[in-house]
Amino acid sequence: MDEFSFISDILKPLARGFAGSLGLSDDAAVFTPPPGHDLVVTKDAISEGIHFTGQEDPALLAQKLLRVNLSDLAAMGATPLCYFLALMLPQAPQPEWLARFAEGLAQDQTLYNIHLAGGDTIATRGFFCASLTALGTVPAGKALRRNAAQTGDQIYVSGTLGDSALGLALVQNRLDGLPAADRHWLEERYFLPQPRMALGEKLAGTAHAVMDISDGLLQDMGHICTASGTAAVIDRHRLPLSQAVAALIANNPALWEYVFAGGDDYELLFTVPADKEAGIEALSVSLGLRLTAIGNITEGSGVTLRDEQGQALPVSRTGYNHLA
Amino acid sequence: MDEFSFISDILKPLARGFAGSLGLSDDAAVFTPPPGHDLVVTKDAISEGIHFTGQEDPALLAQKLLRVNLSDLAAMGATPLCYFLALMLPQAPQPEWLARFAEGLAQDQTLYNIHLAGGDTIATRGFFCASLTALGTVPAGKALRRNAAQTGDQIYVSGTLGDSALGLALVQNRLDGLPAADRHWLEERYFLPQPRMALGEKLAGTAHAVMDISDGLLQDMGHICTASGTAAVIDRHRLPLSQAVAALIANNPALWEYVFAGGDDYELLFTVPADKEAGIEALSVSLGLRLTAIGNITEGSGVTLRDEQGQALPVSRTGYNHLA
Repeated sequence: MDEFSFISDILKPLARGFAGSLGLSDDAAVFTPPPGHDLVVTKDAISEGIHFTGQEDPALLAQKLLRVNLSDLAAMGATPLCYFLALMLPQAPQPEWLARFAEGLAQDQTLYNIHLAGGDTIATRGFFCASLTALGTVPAGKALRRNAAQTGDQIYVSGTLGDSALGLALVQNRLDGLPAADRHWLEERYFLPQPRMALGEKLAGTAHAVMDISDGLLQDMGHICTASGTAAVIDRHRLPLSQAVAALIANNPALWEYVFAGGDDYELLFTVPADKEAGIEALSVSLGLRLTAIGNITEGSGVTLRDEQGQALPVSRTGYNHLA
Repeated sequence: MDEFSFISDILKPLARGFAGSLGLSDDAAVFTPPPGHDLVVTKDAISEGIHFTGQEDPALLAQKLLRVNLSDLAAMGATPLCYFLALMLPQAPQPEWLARFAEGLAQDQTLYNIHLAGGDTIATRGFFCASLTALGTVPAGKALRRNAAQTGDQIYVSGTLGDSALGLALVQNRLDGLPAADRHWLEERYFLPQPRMALGEKLAGTAHAVMDISDGLLQDMGHICTASGTAAVIDRHRLPLSQAVAALIANNPALWEYVFAGGDDYELLFTVPADKEAGIEALSVSLGLRLTAIGNITEGSGVTLRDEQGQALPVSRTGYNHLA
């Protein structure tokens, strides 16, 4: 399968729902942004040997690449519009592999109402890499920012933490003896993050600061604090754990690190003023999504992790750092 | 240099001129598209060992990556707005390398009035890859398309053809015995394409179909013909050659292939109705840019290359095909 049949047979069908793609047959995409809206743009990349092993179902790989970008849109309160894909393929990719990759995209395009609008496919030497640029829209001036946390805000997180990092440990054979149901849960959380689109769209007017947790809770909380000029105190015992992670930690408390510094959670981390907390409970019910208060924004700088007695816990690692 | 000091020390200064970048300190960029304009978006990627050797000055690499994307914007008649950069770096990149890469970007940001708005930096195994997404704007409905060629149009090309492909042959030690001035010209054309922004912006209302030549003249002409439902006849003896390329071909006519199928030209290929041809000559003068009529759009399908007697020339290769 050469470059042009890949584009016409496999990629073009993914672009059919977005007129601005011009059927992937021009130099660029062209579209009119919706009036009264701001454009939100994010770009994330993944690489074989770093973000995935290369042995995965290519459909899962495609979905993860799309979803980590959608998670950034969710963190800004944006609604997905379209995306651009750059594939850097080792020589002689298999048509079956490419077709399966596209199937993953097609499935998520339906789920998240987004379409392919353009991109590039090139040959590379060595390892597969891919980069995706996702565009979304938000009512003008309503994008959710990291820099708006205020002293006294309650800190919330969606879903559960640590599943994905422990799922990776499982995939890499660094965890043994788990029940099948727990294995399945952790792997699924690693392979298929759930970008919290509906939550992001609903947080406008309620949350102060919002971001998604991709590198690790404490590190990402630090980004909110730095941007907002505040400090944060997080209670470790309040961190939301899945049954699988709770069981693992009960056996081995050293695994707490996966929860507060593991990364790849793609849950939303947000701060809410005291008078809006009731709204969060209602939102949790209406979305059917766990939203847990885990700490408070305070004056000063830095992030403190506390135990049940309110004592600061030593932290050796706060999150993931590429190139470190 | 870790991921975060790379972002704060080297990338953030590149984003200062574009408020929508949010200082690269949020989950995504947010900006209000200019009213009355369409958005034009393109994404191209490059890979070590394919698009460059890895021995180049990183500043040139950065400039080429940006410029091949700008050339796509030029082909749509768009004005640059901002760009997103994904860097996939082999382990342990040198700070000097990264700083020099950023210097190349900074230089071209000034030249083309465009700013960094976001992106991603990840570790990869093996080879350096990079992907860039460029956004531009064009007055609503005025984007230049590939699908608008009409029978009777004159076909034009900007600049000269084949320089870059022969520059690559030179860099790869496949060409010997050239005068120093010619070597310098060909290498410069390979390393530093000149996206024809001013020409693209001026072609609205004059040209029918427009695209940029990235894969090779004949192949790219074929894309215009397919999209427009027309055929094209191109006269080889009218193709614009630099002095260096003309001298090479005089010695070795087999090198013609680099001119009509070499690729990496990043010149604009466009078709113009008969009554607008005088305007093209005036435009050439006002821009100080060679614009050469090289053939005609005809009925039918396919692209024919002719000699001075009007005889069809055999063509073994029409352009570059990744993954082929």
